[in-house]
Amino acid sequence: MDFSQVFDPISNQLERFETRYKEILQSDSVIIRRITEHLMGASGKRLRPALLYLTSGKDNDSALYAALAVELIHTATLLHDDVIDESSTRRGIDTVNYKWNNLISVLMGDYFFAKAFGLLVKAEKPDLMTSFAATTERVSVGELNQAFYTGNFDIDEDIYLQIIADKTASLFACSAEAGAICSGQDPKTCDMLKSFGENLGLAFQITDDLLDLIGESTKTGKSLGSDIREGWVTLPLIYALRNGNAEHKKRFQGILGADIAQSDLDEVVGFVRKNGGIEYAEQKAKGYVEKAIAIVRGLDGLPTRGALENLATLAAARDK
Amino acid sequence: MDFSQVFDPISNQLERFETRYKEILQSDSVIIRRITEHLMGASGKRLRPALLYLTSGKDNDSALYAALAVELIHTATLLHDDVIDESSTRRGIDTVNYKWNNLISVLMGDYFFAKAFGLLVKAEKPDLMTSFAATTERVSVGELNQAFYTGNFDIDEDIYLQIIADKTASLFACSAEAGAICSGQDPKTCDMLKSFGENLGLAFQITDDLLDLIGESTKTGKSLGSDIREGWVTLPLIYALRNGNAEHKKRFQGILGADIAQSDLDEVVGFVRKNGGIEYAEQKAKGYVEKAIAIVRGLDGLPTRGALENLATLAAARDK
Repeated sequence: MDFSQVFDPISNQLERFETRYKEILQSDSVIIRRITEHLMGASGKRLRPALLYLTSGKDNDSALYAALAVELIHTATLLHDDVIDESSTRRGIDTVNYKWNNLISVLMGDYFFAKAFGLLVKAEKPDLMTSFAATTERVSVGELNQAFYTGNFDIDEDIYLQIIADKTASLFACSAEAGAICSGQDPKTCDMLKSFGENLGLAFQITDDLLDLIGESTKTGKSLGSDIREGWVTLPLIYALRNGNAEHKKRFQGILGADIAQSDLDEVVGFVRKNGGIEYAEQKAKGYVEKAIAIVRGLDGLPTRGALENLATLAAARDK
Repeated sequence: MDFSQVFDPISNQLERFETRYKEILQSDSVIIRRITEHLMGASGKRLRPALLYLTSGKDNDSALYAALAVELIHTATLLHDDVIDESSTRRGIDTVNYKWNNLISVLMGDYFFAKAFGLLVKAEKPDLMTSFAATTERVSVGELNQAFYTGNFDIDEDIYLQIIADKTASLFACSAEAGAICSGQDPKTCDMLKSFGENLGLAFQITDDLLDLIGESTKTGKSLGSDIREGWVTLPLIYALRNGNAEHKKRFQGILGADIAQSDLDEVVGFVRKNGGIEYAEQKAKGYVEKAIAIVRGLDGLPTRGALENLATLAAARDK
């Protein structure tokens, strides 16, 4: 099973989404046109809009506006994430900060945020605005806290989980809740679907962090070990360090960084494997998938229940 | 006359603004606390909130939320503007990108944008949202176009004016319109005050660009010639180049840049002076001030009319 199969019931909505996404990014500005054309060369899986359509079940204008907004916000955060010297490719194409520069990448992200804001205003649903406002705040807080804990080997599992919940899971939660809001579901259902999205997002990010250590770069489209190069300690290493000793921590603190040698990187991965870090992170991701599935199973009337279960399972799959 | 005198009739509102501004920036996150405390060390003139209160004339919650939002958005754009290696001080203190790094400056700007968005949702006024959404888009388009035309000596006056209208005047226009919206004024008055803000903003930016060439760095808080160092050609030089010849353009294109020598900088300023660039920009700024004043003179019932006239005059004053 892959995403295209899971998204089959909403293929019409996603097609309409693609058409409108291209339309709203038309611009009189030469530089905006050049950058959007460049970004269209590698457009991603549209995971968040798909989640939104699956929880909505309807194809009305507000769902379309919300789906466009969530993808624009996601792309904006990527453009801002890339403002560090190391990232030169994303989804197999040059990053905007590499092809242009940091400032352009930042401003283009701001432009996407502004576009998202405008679409949400058009959707005319106060609950949607409230959800998106709280979410964009959570995303930035999560990212700032990640930056703060980068290079810090004393980070524990609770802090790590809070950070990935804020920076990643919040936008999945918002997508799922937004779908429910746009189809006029009752507040309890909206909350349950939000919680579904949050658990799915946690599973997704833990798996993403795991693949950054042990995945295949041809499949992930990113270079392996990027977290370690940035000094960002993720769950597999956090767990392994609990089973290691103070010497390990000291040694890794010394070697981790942008210019880590391949042999040192291999040593870290070997240490994580030996100390059960891989299995622990896998189990943790599976736990969130199970929570997500338990939530949708409680929603009897939802026609897309099966697709949402499959989507949750895929979030923790290594090969998507 | 200075800003503190003009702001006298709204001193209570501005005091309440300061208290709430500090409150909303409280955070559990250590890094956010550190950065906001740093930024509080040099808080700026609160020009945009003051404009909003002067056009509103009322001190209700929606005006407070809108005033907080406009200042947060302004600060966010400064944090993003600073993401170029050259700017290490702003308002006399270290920039966030200098004291921390580019990524932190970007994320902190995003955090401020998100906070602004949340406050606008609380204001519960659809017209306010529409105005802010269009404005944040204009700001980013203006900034992107400025980045695109940086280093380009063929920029003409129309393009320059469009760029400063988008990147700067739009937020003044939005502030003035927002004040009118929050006090429930009729659509025609809202539009007139918006246009007042736009003209004031144009005068403000032209004067700012002029001061970057011929001001005193102790008063502006910035180092002189920063536009020239960045390769951004502003109105005084655009006008002077019209009166120069192709050789001048070629020569300046060659010497302008981050590492320009003081003697070369002096040569450019001398060229601008000799060719009437200073007077032309001054006259242009005054023209926008007069337009702004003519607009508020048409608003008979506005109790703060006099203060708005003085504010417009100050926008083009060299010594504020």
